[in-house]
Amino acid sequence: MAATLGELAGRFGLTLHGDPGAVIDGVGTLRDAGPAEIAFLANPRYRRQLRETRAGAVVLAAADVADCPVPALVAANPYASYARIASLLHPPALPPAGIHPTAVVAPGATLAPGVSVGAQAYVGPSVVLDADVTVGPGCVLDGEISVGAGSRLVARVTLVGRVTVGRRAIVHPGAVLGADGFGFAPDRDGWVKVPQLGGVRLGDDVEIGANTTIDRGAIGDTVLEDGVKLDNQIQVGHNVSIGRGTAIAAQVGISGSTRIGAGCLLAGQVGIAGHLEIADRVIVLGGTAVTSSIREAGEYSGLVPGTAAAKWRRTVARLHRIEDMHQRLKALEKTHTIGGATRDPDEREQT
Amino acid sequence: MAATLGELAGRFGLTLHGDPGAVIDGVGTLRDAGPAEIAFLANPRYRRQLRETRAGAVVLAAADVADCPVPALVAANPYASYARIASLLHPPALPPAGIHPTAVVAPGATLAPGVSVGAQAYVGPSVVLDADVTVGPGCVLDGEISVGAGSRLVARVTLVGRVTVGRRAIVHPGAVLGADGFGFAPDRDGWVKVPQLGGVRLGDDVEIGANTTIDRGAIGDTVLEDGVKLDNQIQVGHNVSIGRGTAIAAQVGISGSTRIGAGCLLAGQVGIAGHLEIADRVIVLGGTAVTSSIREAGEYSGLVPGTAAAKWRRTVARLHRIEDMHQRLKALEKTHTIGGATRDPDEREQT
Amino acid sequence: MAATLGELAGRFGLTLHGDPGAVIDGVGTLRDAGPAEIAFLANPRYRRQLRETRAGAVVLAAADVADCPVPALVAANPYASYARIASLLHPPALPPAGIHPTAVVAPGATLAPGVSVGAQAYVGPSVVLDADVTVGPGCVLDGEISVGAGSRLVARVTLVGRVTVGRRAIVHPGAVLGADGFGFAPDRDGWVKVPQLGGVRLGDDVEIGANTTIDRGAIGDTVLEDGVKLDNQIQVGHNVSIGRGTAIAAQVGISGSTRIGAGCLLAGQVGIAGHLEIADRVIVLGGTAVTSSIREAGEYSGLVPGTAAAKWRRTVARLHRIEDMHQRLKALEKTHTIGGATRDPDEREQT
Repeated sequence: MAATLGELAGRFGLTLHGDPGAVIDGVGTLRDAGPAEIAFLANPRYRRQLRETRAGAVVLAAADVADCPVPALVAANPYASYARIASLLHPPALPPAGIHPTAVVAPGATLAPGVSVGAQAYVGPSVVLDADVTVGPGCVLDGEISVGAGSRLVARVTLVGRVTVGRRAIVHPGAVLGADGFGFAPDRDGWVKVPQLGGVRLGDDVEIGANTTIDRGAIGDTVLEDGVKLDNQIQVGHNVSIGRGTAIAAQVGISGSTRIGAGCLLAGQVGIAGHLEIADRVIVLGGTAVTSSIREAGEYSGLVPGTAAAKWRRTVARLHRIEDMHQRLKALEKTHTIGGATRDPDEREQT
Repeated sequence: MAATLGELAGRFGLTLHGDPGAVIDGVGTLRDAGPAEIAFLANPRYRRQLRETRAGAVVLAAADVADCPVPALVAANPYASYARIASLLHPPALPPAGIHPTAVVAPGATLAPGVSVGAQAYVGPSVVLDADVTVGPGCVLDGEISVGAGSRLVARVTLVGRVTVGRRAIVHPGAVLGADGFGFAPDRDGWVKVPQLGGVRLGDDVEIGANTTIDRGAIGDTVLEDGVKLDNQIQVGHNVSIGRGTAIAAQVGISGSTRIGAGCLLAGQVGIAGHLEIADRVIVLGGTAVTSSIREAGEYSGLVPGTAAAKWRRTVARLHRIEDMHQRLKALEKTHTIGGATRDPDEREQT
Repeated sequence: MAATLGELAGRFGLTLHGDPGAVIDGVGTLRDAGPAEIAFLANPRYRRQLRETRAGAVVLAAADVADCPVPALVAANPYASYARIASLLHPPALPPAGIHPTAVVAPGATLAPGVSVGAQAYVGPSVVLDADVTVGPGCVLDGEISVGAGSRLVARVTLVGRVTVGRRAIVHPGAVLGADGFGFAPDRDGWVKVPQLGGVRLGDDVEIGANTTIDRGAIGDTVLEDGVKLDNQIQVGHNVSIGRGTAIAAQVGISGSTRIGAGCLLAGQVGIAGHLEIADRVIVLGGTAVTSSIREAGEYSGLVPGTAAAKWRRTVARLHRIEDMHQRLKALEKTHTIGGATRDPDEREQT
């Protein structure tokens, strides 16, 4: 749809520099947007593109207005304001309500008004879908499943076992919620499967990326609180809980029974061991292995940035002998006096 | 279903402390179980919850009986005994035998008695399903596929190419078995695809997690022996073999042609290079990169635990200069005598 | 199908040592091939198997002819020549053209001659399939989708949003192309979803592995150029571009807006941060975290090979105190003269 700059400024509480009657009907990048499109500047990396933009308008911070050659919408948070404008201009194309003739909705399923069930989808007998839920093509909902109002399972999503999804959730293709957790008891004759009997509970406004997997709890539930955002190919083990508003990037793995606080950020490929507690507002950098509980907010890392391989091989070879280096250093210190007194390195190490 | 404590003790060979007539109809955690539920204590981490439990009974080791305020079932292996009791009380809800009207079973497919094929599933013409196999909703079996008696493909499982699954397997949603391995020959004009012609063979009692992928062999087969347990999002490359009873946690990647022994444990996010041999009873800790063969049982690691990011950045910066530190240490040693003799660090390094 | 050695030599420009009339009807390994099968030797690791092979013929390099006890086809690039021969002998078994009665092809979809749509597949109203495209069973194509001539979506592939696939692509089961990128703007009240409006564009001769995910761009497109080969379970973030002929192994993650050059090789489990530039012909070893742009061709690594866990724990403990070691080394140097002059380690560090 289209809107004038005046309408956008009014609706989103922005200050307009420019013609309020100019019409915008889409979004674009600073570099590529045309005169009917709106762009934004939030990442300073792209500031040099501002001066040359031909966009119809730019959403930006007050500090950047002077450099903007076209109409500007000044925002306290340009990225969030851009997001809201883009949502207005490009509303998601939702399918109409109704059940596709090739979908299977088992007797016993409860569908509120406005529900859409797409082609080739399967909705089992113990499924409850609240108002305006969209079940996309090829989804499988098989078990005790409840999906809150306005939620959208995009396509080929699988919910099995016992799964409760809150309101306004978005679940992307290939995601699997409610499969068995990895529970086996070692015994003389091998592994004994531990029945996985709990569920998966998602709060409101949760988003789950493509091919992400969230296992059901062993006895209690696996829980994602309101506003949790998961990227693609994340693994959430049984009985994990993730606090309100935490965002997790792709390919992170969270082992069973770990509790993650609210407002955390986990970057890509992080791995978290089981049975840990992670405090609120913890940031973990990409690829880090978390093997003990984190009690305080802050930034944590075990990231080793890659470098030229030949140099790195020498570094690693030396690292594997760091204990030897330490022993040699200690030997030198023992026979050496500093400030007249023999230094005791072991004492120092204990501080 | 329900059972008395006396029945549970008798059936599973446990020693009962308490009323044999008390009825149990479900499981719970030490903290939350009610008087008709049975809990267990296996992880010492939860011992403090024992004294306050209101469970109907607890499965535990002899050493913990004295601290148990409720009836106790004493087991040599409490976790395995709990698992068996839970399986008895909560048998999996399997669908009835028969072919759902929306499933496609191609002419030529062979289905033994008791097979169930769910909604929207596809069973191709060269598929053989043995007695009591469950093919859940949305599964695709397209190729030369054989599934052994009592196995269960939960939902939306894909078997393509040539796949043999043994008896009593469980394959979770989104798993893909039999897709092409990653084989390309570099040539002047780019990559030439190497046809992937082998199969995937799974033994009995194998379990495969959600969204795990197991590629077909290039010429021979990719093989998982009896009792192998794979968690979610694991990648098994072409021509890998995995020995009996090995258990592998989520997001592990195993490159082509590597052979893993029996009774191994690989923790989450481990990566194993191609063409390696891993001995029996090898344990690899989370996130470790295995780049050479492991010839002896034992525990292996390359795990770098994360820590506060600011401190870690300094540590990594110093690590990248460890060779410089070593050279400086050597220089100091060269001009320094210990016990009257000049020490030769290079000689020492060779030991 | 079958061919004589003479036909194979002629068609692929190879030099034959042996009977041109001998018939070959399949492939095998050096160890297992029988007299009607052809094997190859490319990896020196398998050279010892050559002397004992019973294959009908072996494709190999000139240097190995003398050791070959059976007919030989000499090739400049034995692996690539083997791949071409194997493709000839084992052409992929493609389904016949036509639409399976249980497939849904929405009115508005455009299907060229020779298209095959498998059981339970869904083809939406804005989909364009060029000549001889194969859409396997259970695929979902829902959005503005275009697939080029001769491409093959094996089974249960999901294309959503806006996706263009070039010619002769192969997309393996469980792959998801076109799902929303991970874009959220932090705001007072939590995360604001940034609409993902771009597409995914694949060139010709691209192959995408099982359960790999490629997100649509936020505004512009995510682009894979001609001949890119992706293994299984790879995550490609929004607005990434990958240059011609780059090959990427399993479980690699590429964060948003990163641009990867042509002819690169990324080994398994590599992670690449967002907004980076990777030059052409860069090789990154397994598990490496790439956190800054790479401007020059070459081999890069941050790989830490695993070792015995007990030793490694001591190494890591020492690593976490490397700064302390450095300070102690500096203190020793300060009070020590080399070649008569006091050495200044800090100066040295700056070089």
